[in-house]
Amino acid sequence: MPITLYQDFVAEFNKSRMSDAATARLAALGEASLTYLSGRDQRDLISRVQGKSYFSFEENGKLTRPVNADLFQNTSDGIGRFVDALREVRVTDLPPEEITRACYTIAMGFSCVVDLKKQGDQKTPGTFFEYFVCHLFARQLGIEPKTRIDVLNLDRPASLPTDWIFDLGVDQPKFHLPVKTSTRERVIQVWAHQRVLDGVYGHGRFLGTLACLAETKLGHRKLEVVEICLPGQWRIYQLFIAQMHRVYYLDVPNAYERLNHVFPRIRVRPFGEFFHEAQDLCAMA
Amino acid sequence: MPITLYQDFVAEFNKSRMSDAATARLAALGEASLTYLSGRDQRDLISRVQGKSYFSFEENGKLTRPVNADLFQNTSDGIGRFVDALREVRVTDLPPEEITRACYTIAMGFSCVVDLKKQGDQKTPGTFFEYFVCHLFARQLGIEPKTRIDVLNLDRPASLPTDWIFDLGVDQPKFHLPVKTSTRERVIQVWAHQRVLDGVYGHGRFLGTLACLAETKLGHRKLEVVEICLPGQWRIYQLFIAQMHRVYYLDVPNAYERLNHVFPRIRVRPFGEFFHEAQDLCAMA
Repeated sequence: MPITLYQDFVAEFNKSRMSDAATARLAALGEASLTYLSGRDQRDLISRVQGKSYFSFEENGKLTRPVNADLFQNTSDGIGRFVDALREVRVTDLPPEEITRACYTIAMGFSCVVDLKKQGDQKTPGTFFEYFVCHLFARQLGIEPKTRIDVLNLDRPASLPTDWIFDLGVDQPKFHLPVKTSTRERVIQVWAHQRVLDGVYGHGRFLGTLACLAETKLGHRKLEVVEICLPGQWRIYQLFIAQMHRVYYLDVPNAYERLNHVFPRIRVRPFGEFFHEAQDLCAMA
Repeated sequence: MPITLYQDFVAEFNKSRMSDAATARLAALGEASLTYLSGRDQRDLISRVQGKSYFSFEENGKLTRPVNADLFQNTSDGIGRFVDALREVRVTDLPPEEITRACYTIAMGFSCVVDLKKQGDQKTPGTFFEYFVCHLFARQLGIEPKTRIDVLNLDRPASLPTDWIFDLGVDQPKFHLPVKTSTRERVIQVWAHQRVLDGVYGHGRFLGTLACLAETKLGHRKLEVVEICLPGQWRIYQLFIAQMHRVYYLDVPNAYERLNHVFPRIRVRPFGEFFHEAQDLCAMA
């Protein structure tokens, strides 16, 4: 049932990144995932992540990816309040923590349904998360994104396929929004794409804004959860490739949270804060 | 049998990147792969690549990756001559085309054995190719490579994991050698790593040298071979991220060969030419 609702959401999303119809499908999908998961067992995991506890949903001996017990909400009240606010473009009425929890519940809920219903399918949760975050940005900013931009070339036309680009218009910044469920080594691509945009359009024109779900990994033998992070490499990329303006996580990894306080400063924030600071970012504050 | 010889090669390679023992294991592996494949059927494929023809080895209905009929040698004479020359550091006695054919036969031969003997194993051919190319560079340059280098940092020590780095010493260039069986979108990582090296050590200190096997793809339904290339993106990376000094292919894709003749010029060469121009590259000619 949630899988069908996911396909409905994708169909609407492909018509328009920011339509009311897509928002409605998203709400239905979020609630259906919760309903499905409410009938499954929850298995506590051993958390090796300081200050966080995790569990997995379980069905026929199959375990989902680790779910942050503090962020995931077992009832759909939070999703309902968030989606209503999203529809009426008043998400900032909600505190950032509540936005983060509602978005985490929608993204993680559907991912867990896929973990239980399909075998080794990483692509569907990844695509869903990408579309989900794009839809939220499009609604908040009131803009349809692009995924290809022209590149100046003296001899012949050239264009570059990109992640989501939100262009706020003349004398306004443009958001460059890569979206990943988790990053690992592949994250260097994000900085490299930002470098190309900076090189072609000049520094500061595109605000590099990376959105991620989590960096947790479940060791199936001991049922232990760890966070896989490469903060030393992120700092090298931020110093020598390009500068990302923000990194938003639904479940902020401890090692990346600390990058807010060292040099080079990388601003890693809980996802819900985007909605509250979006206006300031647009004003390039 | 070739799989065991592969493990022997890896064991020697892990002791020293450039030992005679590793070269001997490589020769044995190359010959054993040919012997194994000589007992298999060859199935002609429909080539959609201009000027090249391809076939697959076949066993129990399983097809290997596409093999370039002009580059692959069915007898081990060429491998023997190349390995003898490699041992005696006189590879340049052989013409570049013969070097390329011998290396193609070794790399592709073992990859095809893995395609037939294992199910969906991309990792073993990838690792073998990486070690194989590293061994050839190490023997030719007479240097053990590194895979981690220090990065200047005012506050605390930092180091960067890298592809193979060959450091020729004071006032000499250093080779930055990423190795890939094929590239696709992930290739942006190669330019991004080069950018970090340029940023940390200054432009021109590291010669970016990418080594690849091929960019062929076999469509299993129609048994058609195509080359998957992104030349427009390579040009953008070369303009706006960093400059790769050479790209060597065992089977040079047509679309990348043309990059030798447009702006920005990217020097894409058959692999065998490395040995002939290595001395000039070291002299930064």
